[in-house]
Amino acid sequence: MKMPLPMNPAEISVPEGLRRLRVVTHRGGVARAADDWVAEEVPVALVFNGISHAVMMATPADLEDFARGFCATEGLADAQELRSVEVLPGCDGIELHLEVSAACEWRLRERRRTLAGRTGCGLCGTDSLGQVRQALPALAPRPFTPQALARAQHELREAQGLQRLAGATHAAAWCDADGHARLVREDVGRHNALDKLVGAMQRAGLAAGEGFVAITSRASFEMVQKTARLGAPALAAVSAPTAMAVELAQSCGLLLAGFVRGEDLVAYTFPERLGLPPAEA
Amino acid sequence: MKMPLPMNPAEISVPEGLRRLRVVTHRGGVARAADDWVAEEVPVALVFNGISHAVMMATPADLEDFARGFCATEGLADAQELRSVEVLPGCDGIELHLEVSAACEWRLRERRRTLAGRTGCGLCGTDSLGQVRQALPALAPRPFTPQALARAQHELREAQGLQRLAGATHAAAWCDADGHARLVREDVGRHNALDKLVGAMQRAGLAAGEGFVAITSRASFEMVQKTARLGAPALAAVSAPTAMAVELAQSCGLLLAGFVRGEDLVAYTFPERLGLPPAEA
Repeated sequence: MKMPLPMNPAEISVPEGLRRLRVVTHRGGVARAADDWVAEEVPVALVFNGISHAVMMATPADLEDFARGFCATEGLADAQELRSVEVLPGCDGIELHLEVSAACEWRLRERRRTLAGRTGCGLCGTDSLGQVRQALPALAPRPFTPQALARAQHELREAQGLQRLAGATHAAAWCDADGHARLVREDVGRHNALDKLVGAMQRAGLAAGEGFVAITSRASFEMVQKTARLGAPALAAVSAPTAMAVELAQSCGLLLAGFVRGEDLVAYTFPERLGLPPAEA
Repeated sequence: MKMPLPMNPAEISVPEGLRRLRVVTHRGGVARAADDWVAEEVPVALVFNGISHAVMMATPADLEDFARGFCATEGLADAQELRSVEVLPGCDGIELHLEVSAACEWRLRERRRTLAGRTGCGLCGTDSLGQVRQALPALAPRPFTPQALARAQHELREAQGLQRLAGATHAAAWCDADGHARLVREDVGRHNALDKLVGAMQRAGLAAGEGFVAITSRASFEMVQKTARLGAPALAAVSAPTAMAVELAQSCGLLLAGFVRGEDLVAYTFPERLGLPPAEA
């Protein structure tokens, strides 16, 4: 949840991804003018070798991570093919200029997609139903504990700088097996936050297989797909999954836990990896 | 929030948009196998005059409303141009076959967009930054009260059938000036829920200008844009707006209230329309 405002926001410099606004609050029947923080949301265009490919609404922070992660989780370009990322702010938004290999550019043209999306749209440019499901790697199983998932959600919450000041944002963390949040990224879009995390993991040279991903949101089909693409064997969400997310998690070997609140949780797949009994009655 | 499970879910027929799953819950240190509801999420393709145009992840309910609302809020086809909607379930998802006028088809081809998106992607197919902002009608101002906004959020919450059983879903309501929720739609995507509401309004022949829209989520740029397209002069969100949402609301004359919790709220634009003092110090 968003925290009470600092006593004098005017004395605080504006952090990346936030804007200060003048608002009117109405609390307990008392109205007053006040300073408030809101999360920035800007159109971000992905431009591959000079060709505009996608526009998404995103938080203007960690955009190199975003570019790298989006390319990885959407199978557009791997770390070797993506040679450089340049962040170019403009009037209407921000352009991310990506220099990719000729083979990658050819593949992108081949897809003939006009990729675009609201907040990290994996399906964008998918113009028929057959293209929705990607081939995913099978994940190597790994045991975790409810305690580790609880710690992860706690540390993730503590690390949400934007959310604390402005609300309206989501976060994703990669946590080690004990549940310590090693890398955290935030964004107005939950898919973007996860893509930024994937890009940050790539830049840090961290392997995802020994830990898991914790998210502040629901677990949709695409959150599971991106986590599997990252190679993490488990996803711990604070809220509910969808049926398609559960199905995909089952088929690619991902432990999916929802409603992680303290050590309470619901295991939607592979409960035995959390030391819990099987789901069958 | 999701409610406790009904005593014996096996006795309840599965409502549209839900699936029953076997899960393992871990609560207060006690693990047990249980039945649970999760929200369906399926790829939905929009096909205009036989041409596949977009794929989005959505809740498979109220899909005719979704088609109509998406066409309206994205400026693809108005009520006169959209002649029929056919819902065709298939193996990989659901196809919505839309029959549109020749003029509309020509316009869609002209755009040369491969529209697609995660959960009702308004930006999808937008491949450059200049295309993001639509021209919006100026909204006629109308006064409301914090009491009406509080009632709207309360009634919206009460009407969330999917959310109560499964979590993972959002809802949007059109409320009259007193805050009574007259139409409510739910979806795994908040943009889809709003599009479904817009389509339902169109089918019901209701004019939006006398009331306002209440949503269970944050207010992003696109939620404001869709509300303005509907012609409703106010948007009451349970959570925070983004900076770009506030900017757009200001420029098109929309009253934007966030953090509506009971009669408490934050007015981000036009506080005077709620009988509150101005934001300027």
